[in-house]
Amino acid sequence: MRVADLTTPALLVDAGALEANLAAMATALPGPRLRPHVKAHKTTALAARQAAHGHHGFTCATVREVEGMAAAGLGDDLLLANEVLDARRLGAVVAAGARVTVAIDSPETLRAAVDGGVREVLIDVNIGLPRCGIAPDRAGALADDARAAGLSVRGVMGYEGHLQLLTDAAERARLTTECTDRLLAAHADVGGDVISGGGTGTHAYNTACTEIQAGSYALMDTAYTAAGLEFRQALTVLSTVISTTAPAGGMPGWAVADAGLKAFGMDHGNPAVPGADVWFCSDEHLTFAAATPPRTGDRVRVVPAHIDPTVALHERMYVIDGSADGGSRGSGAGDGIEDREVLDTWTVDLRGW
Amino acid sequence: MRVADLTTPALLVDAGALEANLAAMATALPGPRLRPHVKAHKTTALAARQAAHGHHGFTCATVREVEGMAAAGLGDDLLLANEVLDARRLGAVVAAGARVTVAIDSPETLRAAVDGGVREVLIDVNIGLPRCGIAPDRAGALADDARAAGLSVRGVMGYEGHLQLLTDAAERARLTTECTDRLLAAHADVGGDVISGGGTGTHAYNTACTEIQAGSYALMDTAYTAAGLEFRQALTVLSTVISTTAPAGGMPGWAVADAGLKAFGMDHGNPAVPGADVWFCSDEHLTFAAATPPRTGDRVRVVPAHIDPTVALHERMYVIDGSADGGSRGSGAGDGIEDREVLDTWTVDLRGW
Repeated sequence: MRVADLTTPALLVDAGALEANLAAMATALPGPRLRPHVKAHKTTALAARQAAHGHHGFTCATVREVEGMAAAGLGDDLLLANEVLDARRLGAVVAAGARVTVAIDSPETLRAAVDGGVREVLIDVNIGLPRCGIAPDRAGALADDARAAGLSVRGVMGYEGHLQLLTDAAERARLTTECTDRLLAAHADVGGDVISGGGTGTHAYNTACTEIQAGSYALMDTAYTAAGLEFRQALTVLSTVISTTAPAGGMPGWAVADAGLKAFGMDHGNPAVPGADVWFCSDEHLTFAAATPPRTGDRVRVVPAHIDPTVALHERMYVIDGSADGGSRGSGAGDGIEDREVLDTWTVDLRGW
Repeated sequence: MRVADLTTPALLVDAGALEANLAAMATALPGPRLRPHVKAHKTTALAARQAAHGHHGFTCATVREVEGMAAAGLGDDLLLANEVLDARRLGAVVAAGARVTVAIDSPETLRAAVDGGVREVLIDVNIGLPRCGIAPDRAGALADDARAAGLSVRGVMGYEGHLQLLTDAAERARLTTECTDRLLAAHADVGGDVISGGGTGTHAYNTACTEIQAGSYALMDTAYTAAGLEFRQALTVLSTVISTTAPAGGMPGWAVADAGLKAFGMDHGNPAVPGADVWFCSDEHLTFAAATPPRTGDRVRVVPAHIDPTVALHERMYVIDGSADGGSRGSGAGDGIEDREVLDTWTVDLRGW
């Protein structure tokens, strides 16, 4: 099967860029230093590639992700880095033989872990992002309560999510240390072997954590690229130009591709078409103006602004033959994409809840 | 099954509000005057309710939607109100006995219809929104070419999508007429029985079209409510409060619900929590501050800002027992939602492409 045979819109994974990203991160954070976050790709076939690079513990954001990873044989050490009030499905995964650790930040989530049959927890600590997590100075008491309830407390986690996309790398580094100092203070009270946190944007600066929860590095998006990250764009959305309008009456010309709000996570704004200005997205359309106007029927590759919610909209991703030294760079029309071979089809099998 | 038994996040459809919306629109635009657009709900079970209200022609945005509607026995008169370069799957639906009409706006899309085995088309006319559609003064020539190629040209379509959410109703009415004047001019050259267009926001003003392609009216969202539409919010996203943080050190308190960027279309901004300020969404989180702080474990109903891409993120919707006279109004915590009965489960079966 060639790219020309695909129905659009379709997720394309450039095999060379993906492998280059996985290899670069495995060099920076080898083996257990990285606990890849599967929420960024929601695909066990891709997680298996991360395991092949030496990472056998994974981070999940949903119960479904934990279930799917265990079912795929990737359940050596799964962390649900999120709070749940009903852990019974997680307990079933534990009973079936996988190792599952869940984050807790309250008496209610502690109780849910006990009731659900999950025996290992991390204390989730708020280190600056106003989201989940207990205050650092209360983490020790929650750990004591958890141990008293029979749980094994493996350590702490805290996520400096608000720093991931800061474009000033020096500022990102400085603030990361501020956040991890809070996490280390909590850890001093909690104990345990695990200090988990970080992400693609802070992985190089977060030296306090024993393991980094990065996910976006594998496939990337325009937001992380704008933050100066060294990873390459490995995922694009293949689309077909279905309509073109020539310039007329002082109005510039434009083209419309068949990928819109149902093909892209939009919280970071419009996706990008290399060499073109994106005007707006509709449900199934992307209206853009290109320096070299495409023709109706051309295929264009569109780069998502935010990888995680983009992937969640698609049933599968197609792995294409992209060389590691340039194949992923061309993303516009006329880059010969249609003749590329589809090497593999990966189901985005961790969607939903 | 009760609402308390559902895994969150989950789409809830308030049966009373939905039926009230369907009835109100069927009164305003009875029978064939409305060609409901399925892209707004992507659910054949809901389309069947629209058919029960007298509408037997439907509008689709994707080939998958056409296939699914035909497979569900709702294929009396399906319009793909969009351009395609490969119509072979549509041709297969025609061959299987459904009636399928496709929009064309170029020689390429005309040729795709012929090659794919679709025999009926509408000429898609650009009436003001820079997206698909041929210029009004060229529509007649394309219709001539289509008929010469053996196609049956049923008429024209044109969509004033840029007017749907204008909050000034008088301005919306005035500009709708400007747009439909262009469509009528094209129709004078094209001929045929069908003049198709309009949407939920312009349905009351678009009197030029023989049929209106409204979809959002059935379930609604905060954007259409802000535009002063008379329909009621029939869909909410049920979520669970998984973490709460009390006010401290001058910082207000907040709560976190388990529905985020993967549960809501975000192109219209954040969803709404009645009685609360939404701070931001993360992949699986919604951080908000409520006048009456919820407790960890509470269920809250969140109102999407844009219905179409929200529905596309979910596998199913749960129909709950909501009375037509107020049951859908309460959407915050503590409205007794957990005790409501789940009347039906509808698969969102028209997702993907």
